Amino acid sequence: MKINLNADLGESYGPYTIGNDDALLEIVGSANVACGLHGGDPLVMMQTVAKARKTGVSIGAHPGYADLHGFGRRPVVLPREELKALILYQLGAITGIASAGGHPITHVKPHGALNNQACSDPAVAAIVAEAVRAFDPTLILLAPVLSELAMAGTSAGLPVALEVFADRTYQTDGQLTKRSEPGSVLRDAKAAQDHVLQMIDRGGIVTREGAFIPTPFHSICVHGDEPTSVDVARAVATALRDAGHEIVPLPKTMT
Amino acid sequence: MKINLNADLGESYGPYTIGNDDALLEIVGSANVACGLHGGDPLVMMQTVAKARKTGVSIGAHPGYADLHGFGRRPVVLPREELKALILYQLGAITGIASAGGHPITHVKPHGALNNQACSDPAVAAIVAEAVRAFDPTLILLAPVLSELAMAGTSAGLPVALEVFADRTYQTDGQLTKRSEPGSVLRDAKAAQDHVLQMIDRGGIVTREGAFIPTPFHSICVHGDEPTSVDVARAVATALRDAGHEIVPLPKTMT
Amino acid sequence: MKINLNADLGESYGPYTIGNDDALLEIVGSANVACGLHGGDPLVMMQTVAKARKTGVSIGAHPGYADLHGFGRRPVVLPREELKALILYQLGAITGIASAGGHPITHVKPHGALNNQACSDPAVAAIVAEAVRAFDPTLILLAPVLSELAMAGTSAGLPVALEVFADRTYQTDGQLTKRSEPGSVLRDAKAAQDHVLQMIDRGGIVTREGAFIPTPFHSICVHGDEPTSVDVARAVATALRDAGHEIVPLPKTMT
Amino acid sequence: MKINLNADLGESYGPYTIGNDDALLEIVGSANVACGLHGGDPLVMMQTVAKARKTGVSIGAHPGYADLHGFGRRPVVLPREELKALILYQLGAITGIASAGGHPITHVKPHGALNNQACSDPAVAAIVAEAVRAFDPTLILLAPVLSELAMAGTSAGLPVALEVFADRTYQTDGQLTKRSEPGSVLRDAKAAQDHVLQMIDRGGIVTREGAFIPTPFHSICVHGDEPTSVDVARAVATALRDAGHEIVPLPKTMT
Repeated sequence: MKINLNADLGESYGPYTIGNDDALLEIVGSANVACGLHGGDPLVMMQTVAKARKTGVSIGAHPGYADLHGFGRRPVVLPREELKALILYQLGAITGIASAGGHPITHVKPHGALNNQACSDPAVAAIVAEAVRAFDPTLILLAPVLSELAMAGTSAGLPVALEVFADRTYQTDGQLTKRSEPGSVLRDAKAAQDHVLQMIDRGGIVTREGAFIPTPFHSICVHGDEPTSVDVARAVATALRDAGHEIVPLPKTMT
Repeated sequence: MKINLNADLGESYGPYTIGNDDALLEIVGSANVACGLHGGDPLVMMQTVAKARKTGVSIGAHPGYADLHGFGRRPVVLPREELKALILYQLGAITGIASAGGHPITHVKPHGALNNQACSDPAVAAIVAEAVRAFDPTLILLAPVLSELAMAGTSAGLPVALEVFADRTYQTDGQLTKRSEPGSVLRDAKAAQDHVLQMIDRGGIVTREGAFIPTPFHSICVHGDEPTSVDVARAVATALRDAGHEIVPLPKTMT
Repeated sequence: MKINLNADLGESYGPYTIGNDDALLEIVGSANVACGLHGGDPLVMMQTVAKARKTGVSIGAHPGYADLHGFGRRPVVLPREELKALILYQLGAITGIASAGGHPITHVKPHGALNNQACSDPAVAAIVAEAVRAFDPTLILLAPVLSELAMAGTSAGLPVALEVFADRTYQTDGQLTKRSEPGSVLRDAKAAQDHVLQMIDRGGIVTREGAFIPTPFHSICVHGDEPTSVDVARAVATALRDAGHEIVPLPKTMT
Repeated sequence: MKINLNADLGESYGPYTIGNDDALLEIVGSANVACGLHGGDPLVMMQTVAKARKTGVSIGAHPGYADLHGFGRRPVVLPREELKALILYQLGAITGIASAGGHPITHVKPHGALNNQACSDPAVAAIVAEAVRAFDPTLILLAPVLSELAMAGTSAGLPVALEVFADRTYQTDGQLTKRSEPGSVLRDAKAAQDHVLQMIDRGGIVTREGAFIPTPFHSICVHGDEPTSVDVARAVATALRDAGHEIVPLPKTMT
């Protein structure tokens, strides 16, 4: 089976380095590249595009709120037109750099608070989908399974890739366990491997109570914020390959 | 004769309004739209694009240094790759908004300190031209007559539109009289009208000492920072029309 | 009777001018000076301090969220220590400039979303009061009548000056009518004059239904965002003087 | 002999960590704390103050240009009043946080490009000294030996502490060897130890050609940007103690 791994990258800024981009580029099939407003800057974006091109990792826009200090994680409420403009701005910015760098973007995944809102609020989801469609309707919208964002993308006629999380557990309703709750994050490589393989084998989400919700998915999101999360990501990739799966760029999962 | 008038627009930011965009959109043929780093923001850009589309004004990217407080007027020295990335970022951002708004950009004109450096420093000029070519080699580079930027654009194979200034006088060497010198700015509408008509009639720059330097030009830059500058711009447009010239979007001057 | 008028000032930023500071400085007794994070910058602060000193207007810190684009009007939720640090930072910054300028601050009034939260949320109110007390317990906290902020200031042992609004109407519960409701803002000078004189004569809030809630107050907040709001402010000042009241700096109302 | 070691600290920002603050606080006698414009933020400043207080490290303001992306290292030219306001703003901001934290600042040392300009340009040096004097004339100005800044501080009547660099070599004229030249930075712990002990023993600068320029000094600047620089700093501190010197907070060197 062809499966994609995706991770957030390119979130360094000027003198400030964050994340483990080089390690992740050896692991994932696709990278969500910050667009300079919640993290990243033009040079970092250009360098990230170049590195992804070299490693054969497909890239996507990773637009967020214009909030470097809060890293785009603080909720913001913007009027519809302003939010649409904010997303178009970032889609354009990364495209300008990626296309000139010979490695055009092929997908879009919102960041942080914007992603959270787009996953739970149909109105925000619709604006995100509308912005992507207005920019380029052939771009893949990468959205969590069972999310408002996935539904809005489908309604908008966008190709939608669905993702599950390698290192996060699921509640009975199919949503992620809140980070504030114990057991929400899988920090053990073996546990994450089992979690992922089980979801692939059964073809859907397995909640932490053991319930099963069938759903197709195209991609597995991994994190690189901490050394342990890189280790988890690497272990998941290894387990997938050992089980005979091929880790591919996102577009290759869509056909 | 077909001639273009161009002005800087879309430099408002969040709660802060600057410039006389609505008045200028009734006067000029082309607008240089700020890209959100030295001025402007995504919503302002979107609104500016929509208004320009409605008035039939062609638009261009107006990239500048990432310096809102200094309005992109403070000189910055960046490594080559960083400057190129900074320009690509802004070209992409305005393109994202303009194309989605049904009114794609057709030219590029750098802003403030970046423009000053690109006009006098061949290395900066080359980076600007290279960035534009890498982004879209069909975009017109709008550059002052007798500038390094114009030469770099030509060397890079870009279509180059040359501009003169309606309200600025020229020195013997064909460069603008420095703003710090008396007589550098024409604040009188009649003086600006005479200045412009003389340049068109003779086909080149007329310096303030009365010397003549023949040069083709496609566009006349007007300003809108102050009520008087809008009046000067309007007077120049009227004089041009009265003399039988047609004010057109920049692309129409290039054929 | 000695009464204070207060207004927000010094919210311009770099090339961007906002507000009618010069007009307001001829009207009010006290100015709330932006501290550079939601508006204002160091030079604007220095110039505002100098002008207030010249016109005999007392000044206060006007700290807000670090959000220039949203002008400090977008709600933010910060951890307790981070919010306290944010306020101390701004109190210090304006004090550095004001004291060096020979015109020390004598009060504090939060701005925008921070003020709204501090007026309705006891936890936020307590953090604001705690920050002011830690910085300088002799500073006056300027807070709306019947607000959580006023109560928190009193609990913290701060001198608290209470304010009512000249151009806003009150609901039955003594809170401001929401701006989204019709009749929330008094744009007519005569209506604002009557509103203010009635509150002074009766010694409390008069709601828009005509109910009366007795409460002392020391200051009347006026706005200067629009030409009409300056006119309203000027009319209120004139009416107060005609009725025999003296408009004084805030500290003079506290004895 | 009592000697001070100083280092730059508190330059992290929101989600971005930079520097080795905890390690340096165990080594130095004084910390130059970033003031939120070139690096640092209010919470980082508050936490840095608290840690310095706990370790008995005296703190100073470390004001720089308002340029987070360039980390205050890009030269900026500001009008006199604007630069003075920028410095007062930062002196006030760190004072607001430090005094509320029970650990007031006792010195000032400019950062990056501002420091470079203040060391070589008498006009900039004079503005820095004037701002410090206007803010608090008892604050120590920490300046390199043989610098314009040191002279300006003395002329302004400020207490001036002179510093030399542990890990940088000196040219024949007593200025630092430019970083672009080979041999400008001492990355070897033993070399830095010898360099420092020699300067202390002889009572002045020893240039890399071996020439000697006698000058008193109060402090030795160490860096913490890289693991090796922390190691060098630690080695220098050890060598000083082994040679019988006592590492003290800056004010203790001034009596």
